[in-house]
Amino acid sequence: MSDDSEVPVTPVKAFEPPYYAAVFTTVRTQDQSDYRETNARMEELVKAIPGFLGMDHAQTPGGLGITVGYFRDADALTEWRTDVEHRAAQKRGQAEWYQSYTLHVAKVERSHGFVRAQATQSATAG
Amino acid sequence: MSDDSEVPVTPVKAFEPPYYAAVFTTVRTQDQSDYRETNARMEELVKAIPGFLGMDHAQTPGGLGITVGYFRDADALTEWRTDVEHRAAQKRGQAEWYQSYTLHVAKVERSHGFVRAQATQSATAG
Repeated sequence: MSDDSEVPVTPVKAFEPPYYAAVFTTVRTQDQSDYRETNARMEELVKAIPGFLGMDHAQTPGGLGITVGYFRDADALTEWRTDVEHRAAQKRGQAEWYQSYTLHVAKVERSHGFVRAQATQSATAG
Repeated sequence: MSDDSEVPVTPVKAFEPPYYAAVFTTVRTQDQSDYRETNARMEELVKAIPGFLGMDHAQTPGGLGITVGYFRDADALTEWRTDVEHRAAQKRGQAEWYQSYTLHVAKVERSHGFVRAQATQSATAG
């Protein structure tokens, strides 16, 4: 849920299924007052939830934003969904920040990852 | 799987569960030769699969890309996973285009959408 890419950028890894993914796809309005601060606070809150596994975010400039949060189980998701500050932020999002959004909550059945092998260190040895 | 935002931008809607979401999160390399063309071809192929529901894509410049494909059932996903051209593209992606990626395949259990109400047309009436 952050617009700030942390470095180095790397996708959340594949966990052992089952786990949950909450896919939140958004188009934002022109009015983004306090969005950044609220977003940072939401990120802080979700990371404190037991069973929170990680989060990926991508934002096309002027276009679609996709945030995917990963959770170990349905209880972790319920805790996030019912968080009081999160609910208040959702209301404000509908009133101000979002033109449209879709939320898909899904149980991951399989997953895998790929990481490119490091280039050989011949440059330092040569 | 496209880098081109179509207008108007709007998230894929919430379908009646259950359906499947394939979340593909990528970091790309410097070498993007033929990526665009292959990507366009993959988009054409996936759209032809019976049970394909839609696709959302967001790309942070210089950062993470997230593509989410939605499918009615596991059969549709299997057809996409085993497509010959798709498999060839995956191999080339590992060899050239992707620094790292993660794929999460998940069954959607609940979903909902929000669309902002249109502004009233008072401007045309006034």
